Amino acid sequence: MNMLVDGEWRTDAGEYTDDDGSFERQETTFRDWIRDDPDARFQPEAGRYHLYVSYACPWAHRTLVTRALLGLEDAISVSVVDPYRDEDGWQFTPEKEGCTADPILEADYLREVYVAADPDVTGRVSVPVLWDREEETIVNNESREIMRMLATAFDDLAENDIDLAPEDRREEIDDILDTIYEPINNGVYRAGFATEQEPYDAAVDDLFAALDHWDDVLADQRYLAGDRFTEADIAMFTTLVRFDNVYHTHFMCNVQYVREYANLWPYLRDLYQTPGVADTVNMDHITEHYYTTHPDVNPHRIVARGPDLAFDAPHDRDGLEGESPTGRQEASVDD
Amino acid sequence: MNMLVDGEWRTDAGEYTDDDGSFERQETTFRDWIRDDPDARFQPEAGRYHLYVSYACPWAHRTLVTRALLGLEDAISVSVVDPYRDEDGWQFTPEKEGCTADPILEADYLREVYVAADPDVTGRVSVPVLWDREEETIVNNESREIMRMLATAFDDLAENDIDLAPEDRREEIDDILDTIYEPINNGVYRAGFATEQEPYDAAVDDLFAALDHWDDVLADQRYLAGDRFTEADIAMFTTLVRFDNVYHTHFMCNVQYVREYANLWPYLRDLYQTPGVADTVNMDHITEHYYTTHPDVNPHRIVARGPDLAFDAPHDRDGLEGESPTGRQEASVDD
Repeated sequence: MNMLVDGEWRTDAGEYTDDDGSFERQETTFRDWIRDDPDARFQPEAGRYHLYVSYACPWAHRTLVTRALLGLEDAISVSVVDPYRDEDGWQFTPEKEGCTADPILEADYLREVYVAADPDVTGRVSVPVLWDREEETIVNNESREIMRMLATAFDDLAENDIDLAPEDRREEIDDILDTIYEPINNGVYRAGFATEQEPYDAAVDDLFAALDHWDDVLADQRYLAGDRFTEADIAMFTTLVRFDNVYHTHFMCNVQYVREYANLWPYLRDLYQTPGVADTVNMDHITEHYYTTHPDVNPHRIVARGPDLAFDAPHDRDGLEGESPTGRQEASVDD
Repeated sequence: MNMLVDGEWRTDAGEYTDDDGSFERQETTFRDWIRDDPDARFQPEAGRYHLYVSYACPWAHRTLVTRALLGLEDAISVSVVDPYRDEDGWQFTPEKEGCTADPILEADYLREVYVAADPDVTGRVSVPVLWDREEETIVNNESREIMRMLATAFDDLAENDIDLAPEDRREEIDDILDTIYEPINNGVYRAGFATEQEPYDAAVDDLFAALDHWDDVLADQRYLAGDRFTEADIAMFTTLVRFDNVYHTHFMCNVQYVREYANLWPYLRDLYQTPGVADTVNMDHITEHYYTTHPDVNPHRIVARGPDLAFDAPHDRDGLEGESPTGRQEASVDD
């Protein structure tokens, strides 16, 4: 902990465990919404919003993939923090490969962005952060909500005609997002940050039961929601793409590699090869972050080698029912 | 360290690193020999020798496999220490599954056996230990030498007619033992106990280059020395059988599983299925030991789940030139 103001100010990324050794993720703080509505406080406007992300963080990565798929790069700017997070939290080190400065506040640490938004803020200094240049505040720092805002409020600004959360499928998408969160997206953290055997075992049981389930489902359909690439696939992607190189060893989720799954592995490659997605994956930032930032898990901060994954190998999933966003993107270019 | 006598008395298992963060294994202390020679101080005699082992330890495991293959169970008795090793070193906990008491000295700790052999002993308290009831001392505590003694001096006591180190092949066997020691047998420790990135990287490079090499070699021959099951296979076996469940994750040797190798994995199953070998493998002791005994590597001492390996699956290596010790054993029974 790092007390900056009255009350608690935690610059770690939420490695909290209960008395029984279970990891409990803390809630995010800013939960406002951008709406395509003239009366809304936050409206979609090109150049108005800025995303603070880490390439390492799966939650921030969701927003980067969404932005790339929709073609919102020109409309929404991005800052990338240093993958190494010390006791002062996420920081800006523009001299480092893949990292950027903070063009808004010229901050050295991400916590300054939080304080600028609310001098009395308490809680975790996490990524992603969606900043509003106009109101000079944080709109939202909850990845799932930012992903939904980008997918639903920026139609007029998106360069690609892709709907990642079609209105008639939204209930199903939300169900899947709910379903995969606890065992998979958060499950790897529950396994890795458990400080007792029992919560670790429970997390590993839940995680691999869920992976087994979705591996079965993906035998017959291209995407989690069936024939449509949706937000649910983005949420699954940012966990799976980190799995074999980080969660498997660092978080001891080592029952099997994702690359050993008959369907999850081709599915992961299919998503990775979707135009725009690969550029959002920075495996150096991912491995540096996890292995060097949790000395309580990896005391010598040595970065494990990990498998060399053939993300570009053919995935052979084109035959399954379901249209890649690629097709839609190309159609849009032809309009 | 645990100073029991003048000088150093180290009860840990050799997790020493140099200034540059490289792991350096300490030398063993007792190096006498049992010879089938009437003038020898130590001669092969049924009931005279006792082996102190840990099921967890790959070096001790070599001697257990040798003893089982040769059928020396009645001639040489065994004590098994607790897989969990605390600051007092290996200990006897006969109440625990798979563990035994010390029938010789009724010791609580293995260090007492070392002190009984030499009150001025210094150095590591390691397994295996070959104890001589007659002289009341330790003959040898170097696994490779104990393996060689059992293989060469106990012909008259061995129930099975197996030669694990044929005289005309001994140079080749010694070469292979030398060749696999540093990158593979000790290489997993060099990776796991490195405290800096550079020695870890070097160890991982060496390890997987060596595994790749032997995987190629084993495409065309059944055993490391060609057509004969030898000590070299035992030395490779006790490392490979621990690899996917322990070294892969705990020591971050995570480039790939052994079970992903085209030839090493069937080879490992072939060795495992050689009569007598499977009974020497106690995976519970193996995983408990590594994950709970090195808090500097795994601070919360949580035992990782690991893959569920199908050691009993068909290995299909019978077609390669080379006779399993099984055949020889059965022939011996028919004599």
